[in-house]
Amino acid sequence: MILTAMEKAEILVEALPYIKEFYGKRVVIKYGGAAMLDCDLKEKVMQDIVLMKYVGMHPIIVHGGGPEITNMLTRVEIETNFVDGLRVTNKDTMEIVEMVLGGKVNKEIVSGINASGGKAVGITGKDARLIEAVPVDSSGQLGFVGEVKNINAEIVETIIQNGYIPVIAPIGIDNECQSYNINADFVAAAIAVAMKADKLVLLTDVPGLLKDKDDIESIISVLKISEVSKYIEAGIIAGGMIPKIKCCVESVTGGVGRTHIIDGRVAHAILLEIFTNKGIGTMVVNE
Amino acid sequence: MILTAMEKAEILVEALPYIKEFYGKRVVIKYGGAAMLDCDLKEKVMQDIVLMKYVGMHPIIVHGGGPEITNMLTRVEIETNFVDGLRVTNKDTMEIVEMVLGGKVNKEIVSGINASGGKAVGITGKDARLIEAVPVDSSGQLGFVGEVKNINAEIVETIIQNGYIPVIAPIGIDNECQSYNINADFVAAAIAVAMKADKLVLLTDVPGLLKDKDDIESIISVLKISEVSKYIEAGIIAGGMIPKIKCCVESVTGGVGRTHIIDGRVAHAILLEIFTNKGIGTMVVNE
Amino acid sequence: MILTAMEKAEILVEALPYIKEFYGKRVVIKYGGAAMLDCDLKEKVMQDIVLMKYVGMHPIIVHGGGPEITNMLTRVEIETNFVDGLRVTNKDTMEIVEMVLGGKVNKEIVSGINASGGKAVGITGKDARLIEAVPVDSSGQLGFVGEVKNINAEIVETIIQNGYIPVIAPIGIDNECQSYNINADFVAAAIAVAMKADKLVLLTDVPGLLKDKDDIESIISVLKISEVSKYIEAGIIAGGMIPKIKCCVESVTGGVGRTHIIDGRVAHAILLEIFTNKGIGTMVVNE
Amino acid sequence: MILTAMEKAEILVEALPYIKEFYGKRVVIKYGGAAMLDCDLKEKVMQDIVLMKYVGMHPIIVHGGGPEITNMLTRVEIETNFVDGLRVTNKDTMEIVEMVLGGKVNKEIVSGINASGGKAVGITGKDARLIEAVPVDSSGQLGFVGEVKNINAEIVETIIQNGYIPVIAPIGIDNECQSYNINADFVAAAIAVAMKADKLVLLTDVPGLLKDKDDIESIISVLKISEVSKYIEAGIIAGGMIPKIKCCVESVTGGVGRTHIIDGRVAHAILLEIFTNKGIGTMVVNE
Amino acid sequence: MILTAMEKAEILVEALPYIKEFYGKRVVIKYGGAAMLDCDLKEKVMQDIVLMKYVGMHPIIVHGGGPEITNMLTRVEIETNFVDGLRVTNKDTMEIVEMVLGGKVNKEIVSGINASGGKAVGITGKDARLIEAVPVDSSGQLGFVGEVKNINAEIVETIIQNGYIPVIAPIGIDNECQSYNINADFVAAAIAVAMKADKLVLLTDVPGLLKDKDDIESIISVLKISEVSKYIEAGIIAGGMIPKIKCCVESVTGGVGRTHIIDGRVAHAILLEIFTNKGIGTMVVNE
Amino acid sequence: MILTAMEKAEILVEALPYIKEFYGKRVVIKYGGAAMLDCDLKEKVMQDIVLMKYVGMHPIIVHGGGPEITNMLTRVEIETNFVDGLRVTNKDTMEIVEMVLGGKVNKEIVSGINASGGKAVGITGKDARLIEAVPVDSSGQLGFVGEVKNINAEIVETIIQNGYIPVIAPIGIDNECQSYNINADFVAAAIAVAMKADKLVLLTDVPGLLKDKDDIESIISVLKISEVSKYIEAGIIAGGMIPKIKCCVESVTGGVGRTHIIDGRVAHAILLEIFTNKGIGTMVVNE
Repeated sequence: MILTAMEKAEILVEALPYIKEFYGKRVVIKYGGAAMLDCDLKEKVMQDIVLMKYVGMHPIIVHGGGPEITNMLTRVEIETNFVDGLRVTNKDTMEIVEMVLGGKVNKEIVSGINASGGKAVGITGKDARLIEAVPVDSSGQLGFVGEVKNINAEIVETIIQNGYIPVIAPIGIDNECQSYNINADFVAAAIAVAMKADKLVLLTDVPGLLKDKDDIESIISVLKISEVSKYIEAGIIAGGMIPKIKCCVESVTGGVGRTHIIDGRVAHAILLEIFTNKGIGTMVVNE
Repeated sequence: MILTAMEKAEILVEALPYIKEFYGKRVVIKYGGAAMLDCDLKEKVMQDIVLMKYVGMHPIIVHGGGPEITNMLTRVEIETNFVDGLRVTNKDTMEIVEMVLGGKVNKEIVSGINASGGKAVGITGKDARLIEAVPVDSSGQLGFVGEVKNINAEIVETIIQNGYIPVIAPIGIDNECQSYNINADFVAAAIAVAMKADKLVLLTDVPGLLKDKDDIESIISVLKISEVSKYIEAGIIAGGMIPKIKCCVESVTGGVGRTHIIDGRVAHAILLEIFTNKGIGTMVVNE
Repeated sequence: MILTAMEKAEILVEALPYIKEFYGKRVVIKYGGAAMLDCDLKEKVMQDIVLMKYVGMHPIIVHGGGPEITNMLTRVEIETNFVDGLRVTNKDTMEIVEMVLGGKVNKEIVSGINASGGKAVGITGKDARLIEAVPVDSSGQLGFVGEVKNINAEIVETIIQNGYIPVIAPIGIDNECQSYNINADFVAAAIAVAMKADKLVLLTDVPGLLKDKDDIESIISVLKISEVSKYIEAGIIAGGMIPKIKCCVESVTGGVGRTHIIDGRVAHAILLEIFTNKGIGTMVVNE
Repeated sequence: MILTAMEKAEILVEALPYIKEFYGKRVVIKYGGAAMLDCDLKEKVMQDIVLMKYVGMHPIIVHGGGPEITNMLTRVEIETNFVDGLRVTNKDTMEIVEMVLGGKVNKEIVSGINASGGKAVGITGKDARLIEAVPVDSSGQLGFVGEVKNINAEIVETIIQNGYIPVIAPIGIDNECQSYNINADFVAAAIAVAMKADKLVLLTDVPGLLKDKDDIESIISVLKISEVSKYIEAGIIAGGMIPKIKCCVESVTGGVGRTHIIDGRVAHAILLEIFTNKGIGTMVVNE
Repeated sequence: MILTAMEKAEILVEALPYIKEFYGKRVVIKYGGAAMLDCDLKEKVMQDIVLMKYVGMHPIIVHGGGPEITNMLTRVEIETNFVDGLRVTNKDTMEIVEMVLGGKVNKEIVSGINASGGKAVGITGKDARLIEAVPVDSSGQLGFVGEVKNINAEIVETIIQNGYIPVIAPIGIDNECQSYNINADFVAAAIAVAMKADKLVLLTDVPGLLKDKDDIESIISVLKISEVSKYIEAGIIAGGMIPKIKCCVESVTGGVGRTHIIDGRVAHAILLEIFTNKGIGTMVVNE
Repeated sequence: MILTAMEKAEILVEALPYIKEFYGKRVVIKYGGAAMLDCDLKEKVMQDIVLMKYVGMHPIIVHGGGPEITNMLTRVEIETNFVDGLRVTNKDTMEIVEMVLGGKVNKEIVSGINASGGKAVGITGKDARLIEAVPVDSSGQLGFVGEVKNINAEIVETIIQNGYIPVIAPIGIDNECQSYNINADFVAAAIAVAMKADKLVLLTDVPGLLKDKDDIESIISVLKISEVSKYIEAGIIAGGMIPKIKCCVESVTGGVGRTHIIDGRVAHAILLEIFTNKGIGTMVVNE
């Protein structure tokens, strides 16, 4: 479809109420899944993030990096075991995880944002001790899989206040300087709470929470946290959705205004969520 | 035409390079003519201005007020004479001019901007002695028609630095506190120079400077100031275009990056000028 | 009387304790009545205000404009009706009210202050939506006579913090951008409360509140708000004094230190109130 | 003479143009002589200084202390020799000079200013190494009589920018931490230059520079520095006037706007100089 | 002992944890006794103070001046009486006290600090009315011996925030501008409280509080304020220790983190207290 | 050797003149070689850096990563060719280089500094487009080996001004977002110039520039850039020293005060250079 310049101007103007509403707001975005693999989607996410910054929001990016890690582990012939869906992370594995997340994935996102006209700065949880971690599993079975113990958010504050977009790799550190691999969703939630974010957006590979997993029309647009246990019992929140929803609950109970599970396979999903009246995906609210 | 949300998102993203280019820039807009009379156009100008502010520019509005003044002079039965196209302005006329410009037109623009989501503050050249004036005509024949002698721009700086959009009525003041009615184009040019603006945009009721006034296709897109005298001799710059072009020349020689004569009868003309590659109307440059 | 320079120096020095006491304080002045009509008084008020600014106070001016409005309505042949002492204000009347208050009276005061060496900036309640209003009379009988619903004081803060003296016309605005004519005393009181002023001074055409209206010696110098109802019952507070006193009560209960009704017909009445030990007129206090 | 409050208000207002002219200006005052000995004069100087601060000037005080030093030297039975009018200052003498200047005279002035409502801070040239000195006499005959080698003005800047009035004792220090007694006039001039003062005022015990020393009417109101040598040859600038005039010349050639020799025996001499059109005493200008 | 450069570097590095712990902290030091008399000790105190400033602490010095005062009183033949260990201070005595403390001792410390590379500014309690005092003895028997009534700490704040080290002479002032001689320990405690200091260090001529005054090994390293009365009853806290301990109690109950009585006869006693794990002397804590 | 606390205090105090001299100064440190491989040396470098920050300097770290890169390339079985001592860097190699430098080496240094009590933030030249690069070899033979085209130093400024220590991996980026591997010495020099550093320190594995490479006593302590060509001709500057010296020359001609080649195999080499009078290694100066 070919639009005249004037039709385009109209559309910019339509965005005004949303721009106004989100001016100066902080939005934490968990970036991962298909939106990170598909070249075209990737570029659109970068554009969305840069646009957010230019119209006055403070986007804060937390990324995962699963397939790249697996790929690299294969190249260096480290075998991976999974326990309860979590990668058992020994010292050798952790070394690769850090290199891939902090040296490759993180910097690719930084470059992508910069190429789209933004000014991104990539850090991991080791920088300025941003993410203090403890092992998720005290038995030691999982090795260096961690969970967030504390967020030292000043460095993120410094970055956003000076006009940059922070891009954060989900690596934590403990008091002995041991690194930990942490689930990026939970890092995003913890940072959203620490930064007093107004919104947390999880880019996923599903349309949202569906009542009937085979019927996209059955999407639950608004999920109250008081309903969560009911839905778990009913099996509607199940499998990989359980930690995602748990993550949203932590975030909204920690004071983040709204938390969204949206479909990263949709182009410009983030802008759609922010600049349209209905939003997309499933929004979790503190009720 | 009905667009999907995603198509709209694409259009927002297309604007990014322009948003980036003009981030933090100062744009003085002379607002007048049809764009001030037609309700729909008026609203669109307001939206354009507010959008500019939200995406990081500093719009500064200078307005005229011709028809409203004439209308009010008629109501109070003051007869108006024109000499060389300039309204002879005696004491009684000046009183009405001030009331209409400062009390009515200025505040309507302010309200319009505020209704579109901005925060406007309306002042005249008397406030903080913004516009110091002298009579344009030392013989006194024209009465209180003035020209700019000096701009005290600090108040405009204060207004933009605190997040407001200044709206300026073209009334000047001399050392004896006598008010003067000044041509809004020239006030806009003087303020653009004093504020070190990057752009001056004159909203007019013509498409720009035409080589053949009956052929809209003959528009001169870029006018170098070195060509001006040639075009005047050739009669291409003639009539009401002469002062407008003179005003543009003053502005670009005073250091304003670019100056534009655009067609205010076109909806969203300001956005079109800023957010499209070609721009519209005639751009005057310092070459 | 001719004073030597040294005698004058002594008098400056006598003012020191008062200068010190009011350093950095905010004083809202309702300017109207005779002090606005008489040329000589007018000039002295301007001088008083500028002096206040230079010795470290923050004067904030709110003005009325009665006679000028009536005069202009006559010229344009709009008939005025009054209900309960309030001008019935239809659309045509409101248009004239705005022009006269915002375009003429406001700017004359601005010019007067500037001529006395200050830097004034004149605004109305429409600028930056300073004064949000609702109709005073829900029946609609009075038209666009409003009362203050909310004050957005940031613009006044910006003006005083940057070294300017704000001059405010008592025009309010509602959510539909409809203008309202509001009693200037009440606007002054509301702004004094919103700006956390230390003092509100109402310039009137009476010496203050008199116990016996024919005996100027019977002036009540200090009026406790706990005494107000008693005095109303006794008929001592009556007629036009009732809204003035109501306005003072609103102000002191809203946190303004002291509120004064003083006689604007006396030259330099404001300085007398501030720089003499006894003050003049009637002071209303929160007891 | 008894003035009404209103007459007093008029006088305050008369001061406005002067207040405006000197707003934000720096005025260095050399305080000494009769104005320091007479109780009543002393109080008036303090009042003048505090008033200056409250109306927006930055007074900076440098004081001498002659008689108090002599008095104390007598009490501790140290004999004083003078060479060319300069006190020979050995180690014992210097110890007393420092105690008297820094511990007594300086703090009395500080107290006096504070009692008049100001906030004074007293320092000597040793504090923050404000005054770096060298011996005035390399032969050593005069002992620790010094002259200014360098002024480190940051501490004075800190004091005035934080709302305080600096009071400075003319003691210098060299690289070996040896103290020096320096002529207060020259310290005042050096500080005026270093602080880029607009005015230097020397309070003396003469009416100014007189053509005929017995005729007070013969005062030279304005002295151009180009005339100085002529007047010295003519014997009009002679004796104690020579160093004072030299000091003024240093000051104006160093960039201080105007330098004044005024009669400290006149009450409120400082205010008279600043707040009257003609000024008093002799003004030295850079012509 | 001769150390290699590398051994010295190691020692610097050992200090890191302490530097980190005290970074940005405020430490009030009461300077007096032997550390002020012995030349070598004096120099080391100055070095300690400057080092503290350079590694990020804010040292604030309060000094006494006993022997110098006595010496000067003798020279001017003023006889001194003591009542309960307090010097009876009449007008003549007070004059000498002020000169010696403010003009001599204070400035010697200032010079010492500056010679060691710091930037010190010396003031007394009269400057900016830092120390408001009342007579310690209402009967008048002691004359102008005072106690602290109020601390106006802004001037000390200004000094430390601008990179200077304040040096304070313990002279107070009352509303009639009368000076008072105040015990320096109590001034230090009051300033520590007013400045929300983290540490108060009293340099004394004893090793600390000893259980057995003849056995240096019997030192009480930590004294809880709950134990004070018990120790007084037992005669362990006795004589000159009573006011010192009282002073510490005032300080810690006023919010100062820790208060220390240390032995000023030990070289670098202040650094030892701060940069070693155990500290030295007796620490009084709020338990 | 066991030192008493007091001896240690003395040594701290000895450092004062150096601390003072370098207060607020910027020191760029190229970290590499043995000092990065040996665990003990590594820890000491971290301590030196943290100490520098705490005593008021601004250390800025640029690191290399040679052996780790080679090691990882071996693990993933990428063969490396060298041309003129430069690693031929194809796409696959570059991917590994980035991961190792940005994800492993950089973050290990960050962790080390943080473990020593500092607050480090690690970035690469891609972050905020810090290092813009072009291929060093236009023929393409060397692949993605780059040289610095431009430094965008704002991000480093932001990091140091907010109390953090920047750690920079020498990866550059071009306009097409292609990464380049750049020699860390040259990156350090370019950053030193862009940051207007006072000192550039290159940690190497040699004692400095030796006249006779077998005689450590023949070290050239001060090398004037005017002598460089002479020494190259004489073969004294040869081999790997040539680029190092070239790098120093670029730095000092670019405005960096002094540039040092020091021996990283010596413990606390950085502190020794800064805190001792003679310095160590070879200093290159602009003469």
